[in-house]
Amino acid sequence: MSSTKPRYVYAFGDGQADGDASMTELLGGKGASLAEMTRLGLPVPPGFTITTEACRAYWAAGNRLSDELRAEVRAALGVLEGRMGARLGDRAAPLLVSVRSGAAASMPGMMDTVLNLGLNDQTVEGLADRTGNARFAWDSYRRLLQMYANVVMGMRGETLEQFLERKKEGEGVRADSELSVSALVSLVDIFKKKIFEKLTDTFPQNPEDQLWAAIEAVFASWNNRRALDYRNLNHIAHDGGTAVNIQAMVFGNMGASSATGVAFTRDPKSGEPHFFGEWLPNAQGEDVVAGIRTPWPLNKESGALEDEETLEDAMPAVYQDLLKVRQALETHYRDMQDIEFTIQEGRLWMLQTRSGKRSPAAEVRLAIDFVGEGLISEEEAILRVRPETLVELMHPRIDPDAARVVIARGLGASPGAATGRIVFDSDAATEAAGRGESVILVRRETSPEDIQGMSKARGILTSRGGMTSHAAVVARGMSKPCIVGCRDLHVDPEACTMAVHGRVLRAGDVVTIDGGSGAVMLGEVATLQPKPSAEVERLMSWVDRHRRLEVWTNADTPRDCRIAREFGAQGVGLCRTEHMFFDEDRILAMREMILAADEDGRRDALARILPMQRSDFTEIFRAMDGLPVTIRLLDPPLHEFLAATPDEVQSVAEELGVAPDQLAARYRALHEVNPMLGHRGCRLGISYPEIYEMQVRAILEAACAAAREGVVVRPDIMIPLVLDVRELELLRNVIETTATLVLASEDVAISYGIGTMMELPRACLTADAIARAADFMSFGTNDLTQTTLGLSRDDCGRFLPLYTEMGILPADPFVTLDPAVGELVRIGAERGRAVKPDMKIGICGEHGGEARSVRFCHRIGLDYVSCSPFRLPIARLAAAQAALEEGA
Amino acid sequence: MSSTKPRYVYAFGDGQADGDASMTELLGGKGASLAEMTRLGLPVPPGFTITTEACRAYWAAGNRLSDELRAEVRAALGVLEGRMGARLGDRAAPLLVSVRSGAAASMPGMMDTVLNLGLNDQTVEGLADRTGNARFAWDSYRRLLQMYANVVMGMRGETLEQFLERKKEGEGVRADSELSVSALVSLVDIFKKKIFEKLTDTFPQNPEDQLWAAIEAVFASWNNRRALDYRNLNHIAHDGGTAVNIQAMVFGNMGASSATGVAFTRDPKSGEPHFFGEWLPNAQGEDVVAGIRTPWPLNKESGALEDEETLEDAMPAVYQDLLKVRQALETHYRDMQDIEFTIQEGRLWMLQTRSGKRSPAAEVRLAIDFVGEGLISEEEAILRVRPETLVELMHPRIDPDAARVVIARGLGASPGAATGRIVFDSDAATEAAGRGESVILVRRETSPEDIQGMSKARGILTSRGGMTSHAAVVARGMSKPCIVGCRDLHVDPEACTMAVHGRVLRAGDVVTIDGGSGAVMLGEVATLQPKPSAEVERLMSWVDRHRRLEVWTNADTPRDCRIAREFGAQGVGLCRTEHMFFDEDRILAMREMILAADEDGRRDALARILPMQRSDFTEIFRAMDGLPVTIRLLDPPLHEFLAATPDEVQSVAEELGVAPDQLAARYRALHEVNPMLGHRGCRLGISYPEIYEMQVRAILEAACAAAREGVVVRPDIMIPLVLDVRELELLRNVIETTATLVLASEDVAISYGIGTMMELPRACLTADAIARAADFMSFGTNDLTQTTLGLSRDDCGRFLPLYTEMGILPADPFVTLDPAVGELVRIGAERGRAVKPDMKIGICGEHGGEARSVRFCHRIGLDYVSCSPFRLPIARLAAAQAALEEGA
Repeated sequence: MSSTKPRYVYAFGDGQADGDASMTELLGGKGASLAEMTRLGLPVPPGFTITTEACRAYWAAGNRLSDELRAEVRAALGVLEGRMGARLGDRAAPLLVSVRSGAAASMPGMMDTVLNLGLNDQTVEGLADRTGNARFAWDSYRRLLQMYANVVMGMRGETLEQFLERKKEGEGVRADSELSVSALVSLVDIFKKKIFEKLTDTFPQNPEDQLWAAIEAVFASWNNRRALDYRNLNHIAHDGGTAVNIQAMVFGNMGASSATGVAFTRDPKSGEPHFFGEWLPNAQGEDVVAGIRTPWPLNKESGALEDEETLEDAMPAVYQDLLKVRQALETHYRDMQDIEFTIQEGRLWMLQTRSGKRSPAAEVRLAIDFVGEGLISEEEAILRVRPETLVELMHPRIDPDAARVVIARGLGASPGAATGRIVFDSDAATEAAGRGESVILVRRETSPEDIQGMSKARGILTSRGGMTSHAAVVARGMSKPCIVGCRDLHVDPEACTMAVHGRVLRAGDVVTIDGGSGAVMLGEVATLQPKPSAEVERLMSWVDRHRRLEVWTNADTPRDCRIAREFGAQGVGLCRTEHMFFDEDRILAMREMILAADEDGRRDALARILPMQRSDFTEIFRAMDGLPVTIRLLDPPLHEFLAATPDEVQSVAEELGVAPDQLAARYRALHEVNPMLGHRGCRLGISYPEIYEMQVRAILEAACAAAREGVVVRPDIMIPLVLDVRELELLRNVIETTATLVLASEDVAISYGIGTMMELPRACLTADAIARAADFMSFGTNDLTQTTLGLSRDDCGRFLPLYTEMGILPADPFVTLDPAVGELVRIGAERGRAVKPDMKIGICGEHGGEARSVRFCHRIGLDYVSCSPFRLPIARLAAAQAALEEGA
Repeated sequence: MSSTKPRYVYAFGDGQADGDASMTELLGGKGASLAEMTRLGLPVPPGFTITTEACRAYWAAGNRLSDELRAEVRAALGVLEGRMGARLGDRAAPLLVSVRSGAAASMPGMMDTVLNLGLNDQTVEGLADRTGNARFAWDSYRRLLQMYANVVMGMRGETLEQFLERKKEGEGVRADSELSVSALVSLVDIFKKKIFEKLTDTFPQNPEDQLWAAIEAVFASWNNRRALDYRNLNHIAHDGGTAVNIQAMVFGNMGASSATGVAFTRDPKSGEPHFFGEWLPNAQGEDVVAGIRTPWPLNKESGALEDEETLEDAMPAVYQDLLKVRQALETHYRDMQDIEFTIQEGRLWMLQTRSGKRSPAAEVRLAIDFVGEGLISEEEAILRVRPETLVELMHPRIDPDAARVVIARGLGASPGAATGRIVFDSDAATEAAGRGESVILVRRETSPEDIQGMSKARGILTSRGGMTSHAAVVARGMSKPCIVGCRDLHVDPEACTMAVHGRVLRAGDVVTIDGGSGAVMLGEVATLQPKPSAEVERLMSWVDRHRRLEVWTNADTPRDCRIAREFGAQGVGLCRTEHMFFDEDRILAMREMILAADEDGRRDALARILPMQRSDFTEIFRAMDGLPVTIRLLDPPLHEFLAATPDEVQSVAEELGVAPDQLAARYRALHEVNPMLGHRGCRLGISYPEIYEMQVRAILEAACAAAREGVVVRPDIMIPLVLDVRELELLRNVIETTATLVLASEDVAISYGIGTMMELPRACLTADAIARAADFMSFGTNDLTQTTLGLSRDDCGRFLPLYTEMGILPADPFVTLDPAVGELVRIGAERGRAVKPDMKIGICGEHGGEARSVRFCHRIGLDYVSCSPFRLPIARLAAAQAALEEGA
């Protein structure tokens, strides 16, 4: 029976510990690290840890400390008293302990701590006698009263703090440590009186009462507002509870040979292999945390100035001890550590070690260096770098130290920072950029007509739309900072103003946007440019040896293709042809095609577009020499190519030489209530096969032209928005007929594939049938997300933020593949493979560049993911990690 | 070896037959019926049937008659010659045969026939000698030449026909039968010459050559244009092929004691149990088919006039024989038969029997009568009535005999015919209807704002939208004739005109629409009103004994509820609350709610709507006393309640007393690119819980009020467009909190359910999670179809007709449940039931009233289907048929 009873208390001390580093869930991070350091023989003040399980049992029992827990704590306390040769409440040899929270997940500063517990009116005298340092003893007692009143009794911190301040003023001193013994004695008296006045309760003189109350206070602190918010923000579950670490006190404030400090075993910003930290002589750790005194650098490498004393210089022997600890911890943990230590009268004590937070650059460098040092394997190095880290490394970002005025926040849709004058339409952007100005394009939302302006702008800001709105997708494709769905912004493109909370900005005003955080800032804010890093290159070379998933790119232009190759693209998974139609000299022909009265008229207009598309494709084939290029045939509804506002209609009508009425009527006729679900994708190809014929002709003529130059061309023709295999069969017939004609007249042998973009739930569910007519399948997860969730990416900005905030959806489904969309992709791939086991299957939505989604694609056995050029490194890393995790 | 070789020829004659009625696929309908009638001992001219398999083998061999087939035909011909005591080509005793096509599926008149085969320059003389009737012999030869030249040799029918006409003119006679022998001999000579002139080929004098060529011609006729079109229209596969029936000729044109006729064993219009048919003395069947002579009624019951001679009177003995055949066939086939017969010199010969086509009314009556006569069981009767038949019985329809001018065709979205003056907006409809005028509301498309006008109009006509566009759905709900997606119509609501192919109709012009066929007709066209039928009532009472699936209704008003109960509704599966908001006195409060600056403002406006909703619900609970009522909370996006055009904005602004600018701005802010996938359904409830609170309060206060009157209330509250179980959990909490308050203050015990409308693929895929928070689930298959197929029902009118025409989709997915949507419903139901085996699950899309979809719902084990009141009988019948088919 008793063997199944949980054990609530784990002791450590004298080189022995009941726990170890593997027990983070049970003992919390701090408790596990204290146990592990003790086992390593490092100098750790002895103590014991009350488990997180005890915390949960405490809640389950209606916030009551069980008799079992009390008994285990008393027993552990007895062991600790034996180890320290001191006893809680003993006047002659009083044991003082710290009581600290410590959850499984790091929640720095979020929960509460009580130090110097065990002091009372008697033991303070005993401490003074034993240490021969009355000032230290009374200062410790004063601190206990303050902390206890605040943490355990619930009194606001300022209430007692103000008397400390008054006392310092009265004595004419600046530092706490300068107060006289009598001042401290008097302060203790004042504190006790004030506590009783405010709370009609007294500070408990019995140290065991102090201990039980402090333990309960730490348990309770798990649910304070700060901690709740932190967990919400960091996606930490609320049901874990905290451990409580009770540890013999060591004192960094016992005089000049005492000190406290924190350090990283390597430089956390650069990752350089030097010891890096801060220290404060004659101080307790809390002084550093509270920011009361400014600490000094540990050593020269930590950036010490001439007038600052380093620990290395001040206490060389202790510093050497610390270097040994540093070495031992890195060797043991095989990672850069963030440590806390105290020096009590020349002796080093370790209070904490944990994996150190690091900058993106350091993250990569450390992984590389540890491999070089033989601490970790190449595989481990790959698994240690978070894919998001690479995102941050790729984009310029706001200097964290720069001053700024944030006027609004939207969704950070494409990372990086950009500063420029605001403009409100594509033409203005192009014009200003032509004058050499940096501009930020501000729109309610963007459409393909804005592409030109977007390509000229430094950054894009929209008041509507979500993470995969047009603006977001295109901006990420261009690797350009972008904020979307900035709801507080009222954009008036006619007046060329944007209003936000009563402030009105006009065209030409300067703003800075941070596409990572979504912040819109006034004026210019300093940014940091990313450096190209040899470490990233190195890491990427390892990554490619371990991944199975191929990584292709979504690229619409020869330039994008060249960038993508540099970033490791193994093919083009999605080349959207419609952007090509928006160039000024082409849109006219496109509009004539749409306005044509019949097929002949359409063919005339298409014939003028043909040579332009052909030359685009030729360039793309050259850029992707030897690699597959998947070209999607025309997808968007035709009305996107017409004009929207009456003014635009007028000017387009003039350009085309048709009556504005006629143009307006055609526009109205093409108007759709839900264009996303309308006449687009291959439905256009079914209605107007001549459009697809022209595109296929352009693709294959380009392929022949490139092939004649010696380029190895591998064109794949992709049919969008397939609903049923019959569409594919019909269009395959159109394509093959055209292809036969072209290849015969060009007299070049080109092999090409015909495949489909899987964007509708029905396509996924009927993938077995579709596979029969497809050479390849590519899941268009953007549209598949829209249909599976019934969520318009252009409209969801109004409620999707609320949905992720309230936890209705775990993540933005346009960023991370939603589980239901994932299931449809899995079903589609399985059914497709059941018919054609060797068919190439990939995804080409935005998710192809997002780590969690890439891992999912690996797990369900896809062949490739395709993403924006700048996200290729992320996809490569995530793919390798998925492969390694699978092997593990 | 030889046993596996297919047998190509099946003989019949002298009471013996190789085939029987079960062999329709192999022998074609005609061949199988000839074999079966022979077996029954009925007088059938002997002959043999070449199988459909032989036809397919002929194509497979590159259109070549195989030696095997030739050998089998020769053998069968030998048997036939033996039976007839005559030989093909024998001058003394020439055998004449007919060669007729006969496919498995009935394709009346679509393929070719050759009669009198076997005649040539010699045998014609023999026939004249043998019959003593030279006129008959030469007329038969003349007919053979005409048919053979046309069917076998490919000459246009008119080419020879004109010489026949000239000859009649020359002889001064009107009927073919009045031509003299010499005229006929000369005509034969002319025909032979003309054939050679036109075709440089001669009519084959060898009867066996005639036979082979005729067989090949029949095989080929399967692929003539007429037959192809017919099969496309009737969804008959193209790969079946036709059988060929070769049968000894019998002659209805051998004089006054000969005749030909067709009959139905009962009246095919009314189903009344009298023999019904037509006959022609001294004629061949082809004369009737060709419409050359007008046949006479068979008997008095067939509607004989004073001056028409009936067969009953003319040949009473043969008529008695025919009555015996009629009796034998009905007893044998247990169904009303459509027969063809020939009387040769006083002797009756049966040439065909098949199940007779019948009117909707007859279909029901026959099923009922056959049960009464003990011919079929109740279950068989239920299975024999097609659910579509009930649709036709429920609606007034265009008199098939009425003259009409069809000016356009759209999609027949809601059956029935209606005539009225055209109006172009809801107000005009209401106004004109107020003056007692019948109006047809013509719109580009309708929106909820048009409800008032739609309810006042006799019929609805839109130029856009598909089978489940707003107009279509609402019209069906109102059981009002409706045509949608009438693409040739150019509606200009400002000018109050509609233009079609250059013709312009103005407000006030009269049109008639046929919501069944989709025809728009000029002026008034006579209609037939359906009679309430005791037979339908009788059938329905049987139906309800056999179905397992419950049948609920989609009804928004107390009136709809009362109608639905009359039609057998067992509950309300979908009560849409938003239509209630469009009443003139409510829309204002609704708009104020939408324009409110904050929650308080919204609550004020909602408080004014509350009493109106409450009184609606009270009435509905009264109407549905004892039955469940499922009320869906607000679903459409808020902008649907605002005004659209600048003029409307102006007048609404005046009504509300707000600035037009403010209203316009709010409208722009609410504008969505894809409202179907936007801020609607429970997303509104999450954003503005106060709306749902008000609705729940209205529902439960109404329930309490009705309960106090003694009404048994069973409210179910349905949450629309659920994406994730968390939405349901959050809103369940809102509902339960409100409910607890209401029920406590009313002090009435009401039990209610909270469930969800499954309308998104994600909901179906996560139905296990959703089931945990749902008391019931109802699949909203309209929206589920839109999302699964990525098809906007408001926009697909532009391409969906093409899709069904081209066979890309087997049926309009908004009419018949698409297989992929069905799979999602099945997955959803399975996953939901896995968690809650007893949970009530149904569908409430338009598919709930469509027979094939209802059958599917039965098969996957749903509990109920919910449909428009007028479609309830269809759903009940289909549900019973599904249950019976399952049992079979």
